[in-house]
Amino acid sequence: MKGNLPDVHDFSERLKKGDRVTLGRAITYVESSLSAHQEFIQEVLNLIMPFTGNAIRIGITGSPGVGKSTFVETFGMHLISLGHKVGVLAVDPSSRQTGGSILGDKTRMMQLSTSKNAFVRPSPAGKTLGGVAQHTRETILLCEAAGYDIILVETVGVGQSETAVYEMTDFYLLMILAGAGDELQGIKRGVVELADMIVVNKSDGDNVSLAQKAKAAYTNALHLFPAKESQWTPPVLTASALKNKGIEAIWHQIQDYQQLVKENDYFKIHRQRQLLQWMEDAMHLEINSHFFSSEKLKKAIKKSKKQVLDLKITPFFAAKQMVLLFLQK
Amino acid sequence: MKGNLPDVHDFSERLKKGDRVTLGRAITYVESSLSAHQEFIQEVLNLIMPFTGNAIRIGITGSPGVGKSTFVETFGMHLISLGHKVGVLAVDPSSRQTGGSILGDKTRMMQLSTSKNAFVRPSPAGKTLGGVAQHTRETILLCEAAGYDIILVETVGVGQSETAVYEMTDFYLLMILAGAGDELQGIKRGVVELADMIVVNKSDGDNVSLAQKAKAAYTNALHLFPAKESQWTPPVLTASALKNKGIEAIWHQIQDYQQLVKENDYFKIHRQRQLLQWMEDAMHLEINSHFFSSEKLKKAIKKSKKQVLDLKITPFFAAKQMVLLFLQK
Repeated sequence: MKGNLPDVHDFSERLKKGDRVTLGRAITYVESSLSAHQEFIQEVLNLIMPFTGNAIRIGITGSPGVGKSTFVETFGMHLISLGHKVGVLAVDPSSRQTGGSILGDKTRMMQLSTSKNAFVRPSPAGKTLGGVAQHTRETILLCEAAGYDIILVETVGVGQSETAVYEMTDFYLLMILAGAGDELQGIKRGVVELADMIVVNKSDGDNVSLAQKAKAAYTNALHLFPAKESQWTPPVLTASALKNKGIEAIWHQIQDYQQLVKENDYFKIHRQRQLLQWMEDAMHLEINSHFFSSEKLKKAIKKSKKQVLDLKITPFFAAKQMVLLFLQK
Repeated sequence: MKGNLPDVHDFSERLKKGDRVTLGRAITYVESSLSAHQEFIQEVLNLIMPFTGNAIRIGITGSPGVGKSTFVETFGMHLISLGHKVGVLAVDPSSRQTGGSILGDKTRMMQLSTSKNAFVRPSPAGKTLGGVAQHTRETILLCEAAGYDIILVETVGVGQSETAVYEMTDFYLLMILAGAGDELQGIKRGVVELADMIVVNKSDGDNVSLAQKAKAAYTNALHLFPAKESQWTPPVLTASALKNKGIEAIWHQIQDYQQLVKENDYFKIHRQRQLLQWMEDAMHLEINSHFFSSEKLKKAIKKSKKQVLDLKITPFFAAKQMVLLFLQK
């Protein structure tokens, strides 16, 4: 049944030794829809599970054009210069339509994507947000088992990918630009509220004073939010990813955050909550996937739809009938 | 088993005759979590289904404070003066926490709520958005069978209730205020794109010229969106619900819309699409509700969660195990 799949124990050992080819293959299995691949990789994930969780997972969000890719490149190279191994992932449920805008073009992370201490992986394409999020979560675990101790997860910054990234990371960095008008314009309030840090990017040249104003405006705005359960006060920093300015300060703050939440136990509590949330989300995905792919139902659903369109039965009654049929022993 | 439930045929007949007490009870059954109530009302809904669909369903959205309740009151009374019967519903998944901000206080719709040609019903409380949306959909059908020929569905204008209301209505009215700054600020682009009409409310007194400016800005903004499948060009109108200004023009435009989409068949196509979407959503709700309320799983889920927190198994593996256990014959 396993066909030409490798031995699961050998494979897991190679992964834990940090073998890049093995990691790449593992992620390919995660993203595969073949059930043999899925069974194999789920077994691998169980084996490596005790060796995961040792990285800090940093979510990076912001509108398109804010410079996230450039920041990931500069920030990632800085972390590597300090001796870290950096995994770079993305959550982009739209990447099928847009042809993979995010990380699709690795040229925007030229240094990082050729460094032996970085592993850059684009978002899986052509899935729903739920599917993309679950695959990214599994990929985080694989990267951690392979020894990557800092995971950067980038979001497209539209739709609901921000929440998905928040729910899989320890630290949530919101990147903004200094605008000409209202500093808070266009940024969803909910995302600002989630942020552990706001970085005003492209603070270089003529932009510096605008960036300083934006920093002041956001610092004021953040005061309006209730205190965080983590007891962390989110700072607002200015940076220029392009000119490599302000990058060190960002990492210092993230380390301060880590120290705080490890001391006050929030880190652990937050991780545990996330694990249970991941399980809940996976149950939703799994039961729906069984239901909507059921061969038994296909004809019945088609027939029911016709009755609904003819106003013979309500869509709610039709749904109940289909679920009863599905669950029939 | 039916206990003291009325005869389903008698009940449906009384509903179709427009009996208000029967309609009120029917909605109470819709919102009830007792399975006897649910079975009863699903049977009623099937019986009345051929007598539904004759109303125009108008969704009304806008930020809190924009004056939606005042508008519904003024607009509703205008429609009644023209001989219509008006049903007023709301989608507010947060109404439990906020104590039912929307329609909770019927005093804001004093005339309407005491008119014999209006039926005002607050949002069901304490449910998820999916649950609230489904109950509102069922309530629309009940109101239509009871002879209400215009249904107004109000949304809180935060979170995802806007999309839910869009998916259950024929015409989507976005209400805004003229602001001091950027006219497009704070309104989600996605909602503007869905709108069939934008109403700049509170256009009275000193506000009139600001409202005119907002109207111009939104008219320009709407040109940037692609043409609608309905072939309708969304107009921007100014109004003052408080001073009863601009209300007639709004209704005229909605009638023009109706005529257009009935002639070009979009009305029917759109309704049919919605019915199938309702069925799909109901299947999601139903299968998840069976799964997450399964007694068989409760202990197993608890045990699995512990293993997940101990990093013995992945949350994804645990989820698959739970679904297999649930589906086990």
